[in-house]
Amino acid sequence: MQIEVICTGDEVLTGKIVNTNFSYMTQKLEDVGLAVRWGTTVGDDRETLLDAFLHASRRADAVIVNGGLGPTVDDLSQEIAAKAAGVDLVLNEEWLATMEAFFARRSRVMSSNNRKQAMLPATAEILDNPIGTACGFAMDIGKARFFFTPGVPRELRRMLEEQIIPRLLAKGGTPGAIHLKRFHSYGLGESHVDQLLQGVEELVPDGSAKLGFRAHYPQIETKLTVRGANHADIDQKLGPVIAEVRKRLGNFILAEDDDTLEGVILKALQRAEGSLALVETFTGGQMAARLLPLPGAEGVLRRGVVSRDLTQICDAVGLAGGEPLDITNETAEAVARAARRQSGASHALAVLIDLDTGPDRIDFGGTICIGIAAGDHVESRRSRILGGREWVRLGAVELGLDCLRRYLHGLPVSERIDFERN
Amino acid sequence: MQIEVICTGDEVLTGKIVNTNFSYMTQKLEDVGLAVRWGTTVGDDRETLLDAFLHASRRADAVIVNGGLGPTVDDLSQEIAAKAAGVDLVLNEEWLATMEAFFARRSRVMSSNNRKQAMLPATAEILDNPIGTACGFAMDIGKARFFFTPGVPRELRRMLEEQIIPRLLAKGGTPGAIHLKRFHSYGLGESHVDQLLQGVEELVPDGSAKLGFRAHYPQIETKLTVRGANHADIDQKLGPVIAEVRKRLGNFILAEDDDTLEGVILKALQRAEGSLALVETFTGGQMAARLLPLPGAEGVLRRGVVSRDLTQICDAVGLAGGEPLDITNETAEAVARAARRQSGASHALAVLIDLDTGPDRIDFGGTICIGIAAGDHVESRRSRILGGREWVRLGAVELGLDCLRRYLHGLPVSERIDFERN
Repeated sequence: MQIEVICTGDEVLTGKIVNTNFSYMTQKLEDVGLAVRWGTTVGDDRETLLDAFLHASRRADAVIVNGGLGPTVDDLSQEIAAKAAGVDLVLNEEWLATMEAFFARRSRVMSSNNRKQAMLPATAEILDNPIGTACGFAMDIGKARFFFTPGVPRELRRMLEEQIIPRLLAKGGTPGAIHLKRFHSYGLGESHVDQLLQGVEELVPDGSAKLGFRAHYPQIETKLTVRGANHADIDQKLGPVIAEVRKRLGNFILAEDDDTLEGVILKALQRAEGSLALVETFTGGQMAARLLPLPGAEGVLRRGVVSRDLTQICDAVGLAGGEPLDITNETAEAVARAARRQSGASHALAVLIDLDTGPDRIDFGGTICIGIAAGDHVESRRSRILGGREWVRLGAVELGLDCLRRYLHGLPVSERIDFERN
Repeated sequence: MQIEVICTGDEVLTGKIVNTNFSYMTQKLEDVGLAVRWGTTVGDDRETLLDAFLHASRRADAVIVNGGLGPTVDDLSQEIAAKAAGVDLVLNEEWLATMEAFFARRSRVMSSNNRKQAMLPATAEILDNPIGTACGFAMDIGKARFFFTPGVPRELRRMLEEQIIPRLLAKGGTPGAIHLKRFHSYGLGESHVDQLLQGVEELVPDGSAKLGFRAHYPQIETKLTVRGANHADIDQKLGPVIAEVRKRLGNFILAEDDDTLEGVILKALQRAEGSLALVETFTGGQMAARLLPLPGAEGVLRRGVVSRDLTQICDAVGLAGGEPLDITNETAEAVARAARRQSGASHALAVLIDLDTGPDRIDFGGTICIGIAAGDHVESRRSRILGGREWVRLGAVELGLDCLRRYLHGLPVSERIDFERN
């Protein structure tokens, strides 16, 4: 099946907004084994829209159109769809009622503009939008089935997953169900993960398991897709593959599915009725900024301190008065211990960084000393990361948080990672 | 002139990477008055690439192709360009020599793969790439002039600005020069800025000044484009318009052109040989994370403290022992004063937030109390922002930093903004 995605709107065409809807859609389709062949972007202009719809109707079997379903005069998708198919626009009473109920529930008056959103091509099949007033719809134009979707990301996402993907899978003749399992890892490069997982797909002999990777430094996402006749069939196939992936990637898996590194840390601390003090240098508040927005974090992250000046750090955690210190594992342990004691937290994480000097460059690096304190216990880890200022900063945030995750889960804090150079 | 942009590559088509090159290109072209009419995305596939090139060669006058110039087998742009134009691929000795010099300067050996990057269509005009091995080139296919560019963002950016835009402006018959002036403001909504600047374009009677806006909450970017016969002509036209924009937006302009709010704060503190202590609550380290990465910030930001617990905050800045405090302007002033004294910084900024309780929702809000201390002087400001947790957080980061900018520049710290509800 040949699929085309058409994104509409002047804001997308002129780059006023970055088109994340496109990558979201193609990624989601890819995840269920549907490959997109063409992407087209056009503005809110009748002639180019019509041209784009007609061109797609000739070359594709399925077309997803995004945007242009709003109430304003520059929202043209219904009008041009009707024109491309040679059918009339008619008022859809069902959607009008849905919209009126939508506004009534929110005690708001529906503006007369919104009526336009219920004007649909005569042959349109409604695709429900439970969270907005833009009416999704599907219809044939030429040889292709078109799916019209709202530009608002959360409305698009829900409609794509609940309404469009099932229809595309049915249209493509794909039998049964599909499941996507995701593993987030840190410390192994993409090609290393790929190599470690060689042969895992073959654990499902009928070829219905597929692995894919997505690198967003410093994490790698491993995606495992399994098809089956039904959910029970999928569960049976998935079990041994998931076990094997977990075994091979081992301690490097930091979270699965919708979980995140910071979420896993928060959960582990909450489970232990623990709390945390953070000490940051060149990471500049980014570790705190990962944890603190999470609901419930206010009760766990007791205190964060940030400075690029080690004397300030020592003063802030009550380590003042001693000899001037260097950035070493011993210092990181002492700082973590002092921060824990001073804040009354059960755990403390200190990430101290000795940054190279001079201008930013590809081999610019930093030496990172990480200290973790809990009760009377301290641990530390030293690492060196190269790759430019921003690369070192991102790497240090991840390494620091990952060491804490390992500590909280009883895993070895020091395990060599692909990104370090010592 | 009809312009099309074609983005190539499986990673872009499948959404593995978000296509920021596209929005970058169309935005840059828009800034100089060149509107893009079509965007096309295709994978690394000979048939669809050829189809896309031929289709564009019929409907567009100028086409920018991004990606596919690398050394690997899936980089197909030169091959398909030659095929589409019906010309041969030939080894370009000039580019081969450029590449050899590139590797020699870096003491690296050129791999035999790279030779492929010097194979260009016979009719190609080289577009220099001083920072990479991918050779940009321009050539005619059908009725259109094609410009082939590398996928690496910084290589693309430089080639677009230095090589392609001047050629497009010349081709479009646009006389003379163009200048883009940018103003970054905070505190006024987009429609408010638009309304305040009514009539400003008319200060240049020949219609060669254009205003545009780009909102990235909480900041608004106002773009002023002026065309002229030459740079002197532009300067003459720009002067009065810039003065008028500055007058109308007044204290709300926080930076111009490439400057940023955090950069302006850093410069003001450096000029005063000052230093800073930061106290954060629900902003969770994000204010520190804006300032600390800047080169030179390590000497200015003495210390940052973050906690959601006011008792921890007070303890951390040495205010312990008193009555339990509420989040008020007086508390914010006391915390700022204590943080300044304790860290030895010349200035301190404390942003305390009393957050609504309950689940996140569109009218979820926070009351923000901001204290600034410098020497014996203190100031404060209170504000209430609604719009959901993340909206409150982003707004508070900006408001806090903007109050500090105002203080450092001798402007009123309290001036009503469009985003607050008190």
